[in-house]
Amino acid sequence: MARTIERDELEPLATGAWILGTGGGGSPYLSYLNMRQAYADGTRVTLMDPAALDDDDLVAVVSNMGAPLVGQERLSDPDFATKPVRMMEDYLGRRFRAVMSVEIGGGNAFQPLLVAARTGLPVVDADAMGRAFPEAQMTSFAIAELPMFPLTLADIRDNEVIVARAASWKWMERISRKACTEVGSIAATCKAPRTGAEVKRHGILYTTSQAIALGREVRRARRAHEDPVAATIAAASGKLLFRGKIVDVRRRTTEGFLRGDATLEGLDDDRGARFEVAFQNEFSIGRRDGAVVVTTPDLICLLDSVSGEAIGTESLRYGQRASIIALPAPPILRTEKGLQNVGPRAFDHDVDYVSVFGETAA
Amino acid sequence: MARTIERDELEPLATGAWILGTGGGGSPYLSYLNMRQAYADGTRVTLMDPAALDDDDLVAVVSNMGAPLVGQERLSDPDFATKPVRMMEDYLGRRFRAVMSVEIGGGNAFQPLLVAARTGLPVVDADAMGRAFPEAQMTSFAIAELPMFPLTLADIRDNEVIVARAASWKWMERISRKACTEVGSIAATCKAPRTGAEVKRHGILYTTSQAIALGREVRRARRAHEDPVAATIAAASGKLLFRGKIVDVRRRTTEGFLRGDATLEGLDDDRGARFEVAFQNEFSIGRRDGAVVVTTPDLICLLDSVSGEAIGTESLRYGQRASIIALPAPPILRTEKGLQNVGPRAFDHDVDYVSVFGETAA
Repeated sequence: MARTIERDELEPLATGAWILGTGGGGSPYLSYLNMRQAYADGTRVTLMDPAALDDDDLVAVVSNMGAPLVGQERLSDPDFATKPVRMMEDYLGRRFRAVMSVEIGGGNAFQPLLVAARTGLPVVDADAMGRAFPEAQMTSFAIAELPMFPLTLADIRDNEVIVARAASWKWMERISRKACTEVGSIAATCKAPRTGAEVKRHGILYTTSQAIALGREVRRARRAHEDPVAATIAAASGKLLFRGKIVDVRRRTTEGFLRGDATLEGLDDDRGARFEVAFQNEFSIGRRDGAVVVTTPDLICLLDSVSGEAIGTESLRYGQRASIIALPAPPILRTEKGLQNVGPRAFDHDVDYVSVFGETAA
Repeated sequence: MARTIERDELEPLATGAWILGTGGGGSPYLSYLNMRQAYADGTRVTLMDPAALDDDDLVAVVSNMGAPLVGQERLSDPDFATKPVRMMEDYLGRRFRAVMSVEIGGGNAFQPLLVAARTGLPVVDADAMGRAFPEAQMTSFAIAELPMFPLTLADIRDNEVIVARAASWKWMERISRKACTEVGSIAATCKAPRTGAEVKRHGILYTTSQAIALGREVRRARRAHEDPVAATIAAASGKLLFRGKIVDVRRRTTEGFLRGDATLEGLDDDRGARFEVAFQNEFSIGRRDGAVVVTTPDLICLLDSVSGEAIGTESLRYGQRASIIALPAPPILRTEKGLQNVGPRAFDHDVDYVSVFGETAA
C-alpha cells in the first residue's frame, strides 16, 4: 500500500503535473530541481495509497500559495515548505501521519514531496482538485463543505500567520490571500488538516500516480518522435481544441493573482480561426471566434505543439506555437455544488458550464 | 492597590481619553454607553495599580483596531472585545491576570473595561502610548524592543487570525493591518501578552487615572462656566497653540487609516493667521502660517472652543470653532529611540521633532 517514488519518476511528475496545472499552479521545474538534489543526496519519498490511511489519521494538506509569476523568483525548498506543517502540529498539539497536496497541477505536485524530504512523512497519492485552481474554496474538500480552518501560513522571513477560524471558505480565501499578498504574493501554507476518512471520501484519489503516468507517456512519445500532444490526449482521454500561434497576451499580477488572456491565430486545420483563453492563474474559459467552446472545470491546457510541454500563464509569449487541449475534470467538480465553486461563474464569466465531454455529472 | 472604577468616573474617562486621543483612537462615546449600561446592570470594574502586578503575571493588551470613521458605524461591545483575549488564552494555554489598553487615547481607553465587564479581570492603570497612535510599532513596548508576537484578531463575523510570529514590529503592523482591513477596517485585537515585570518597567503608568482626572477637571470647568480649554491646559501642563475656525478639511479612509489635514483661520489673538494640522488617525504635525511649530509625539489636540470637548479627525467639519493645544508626551516617546518610532519622520514628515515643551529627554 506504499511504495517509493523512484528517481526516474520525478521528471515525469513535473511534466505531467505541469499539464494538469492548466496554465497555473506555478511551474514545477524549480521544485523538481530541489527534489532531484534531495534524491542525489540519498533522500527517498514514500507514496502512500490513500486506502491505507486509518480513518482518524491526520493528513497535512500543503501548498505554495500565491502568484505564479512571483513563484518563479522566490524558490520553495524543503525547509520553507515544512514550516507551516510544523506550525500546524504545534498549534494542534498533534502530529501528522502523512502529507498531501491541495492541487496536483503545477509546482504544488512537489510541495508534499518537499515536506516529505524534510520530515520523512509519506505523501498521500491524492489531491483536492485533480488539477490546479486559484482559490481556497475551489477544492473537493470545500465542495464537500468540510471545515476550512485552521490554516497556517509562513513566509521566507519570520512571519507566521494562523487563520484560526473563518466564517466561510470564501472568508478563508480572502483573509489568507491578503496575508499572502502582504508578505510578497508567495507563502507556504498548510490548509485545514484532514482526517484519513475525509481524504478517502472527499479527496481526488491517485492523482500523483496519474500525473507521473501522464508525464511518462509524453516523454516516451517525445523520445519516439511521435506527436506528444496526441499522446497526452490519448493518455488522459482528452480532446484537441485548437492548434495555432500566440498573437496577443494581456497579463497583470493583481490581488495576489496573475490575470489576463491570450489570443491564438489558427494554423493547419484551424487556419483562419482565432481562439482566446482567459486566465486567473489557470485557464478558465476558451472562445473560438468569439463563441464559448469550453469552460472550467474542464481542464484547458496549452501545450507547446512540438515538445508537448505545458505552457504556463506566466510564460505565454508572442509567436509560440501552441495546441489547446481539454482534459475531463474529476466528477465531483462537475456536480451542481462543484460548479458553484469552480464553474465559470466562480471566475466572473457570465456563462453556464460548457464542457467538451458531454453532460455534467449528477 | 486596587479600587473600583465608580459609575461617575465613566463619563470623565470618556472626556479625558478623547482629549488624549489627539484626534484619533476613535470616539469613546459608544464604548462609554456600553459601560454605562453594564454599570446599570450591576457590573463593576476594578482598576489595578500596576505596582501590584507580580513579575510573572500575564497581562492582556487589548485594542479595537482600525479606521476611526468605521469605528463609528461598527460598535464594540464586551463580547466582541473579549473574543481575541479568549483566543490568546487558548493559544497560550495560560490565563490572564489582568487586562490593559494599548492606548489610553480615544475609545481604546474603554476596551479593557469592556473585557473586564465580561471576564471580571482587573484593568491595569496603564497603557503603552500615553495617548493614541495609529500603528503597532508606536508603543512603549515596541520602543523597548519587547517581543511583538503573538497577536490575536477577531472580527464581528466568525473570522479569527493569529499572527504567531512576525519578523519585526513593522511586519506585525503590516500583516495585522491587512487582516484588519480585509475584515472591514475594524477588528478586536489582543496584542503580544506582557508580563507584570514588562508592564511595570515599560508601560506608561497611571494613565487611566490621569484620563479620569483630566475629564473631571474639564467637566468641572464646564459646569462652573469657566473656560474648559484653559482648564485642560492647566490640568495637563499643556500650552495653547491657536484659536480659530476650521475652514478646510481633506480626509480619506485608505489602507485601514483615516488620513488628511485640516486648516483653521485664526480668531481673537490669532486673527489673520492660519494653522494647518495633518493626521493619520491622530494629529501628527501642526504648521502656523506654513512654519512647523509642533510635531508628534507632543500631543496635538483640537478642542471645541466652547465646550472643551475633543474633536476627532473623523468629525472635523467646516465652521467649527476650535482651540489647538499641545500636551507633553511621556518621556519614553521623546527619547532618540522613541522618536524613531513615533517622531514626525515615522509619519513621513521630513522634519525633526519640534516640541513646544523644550528639550527632548535623554
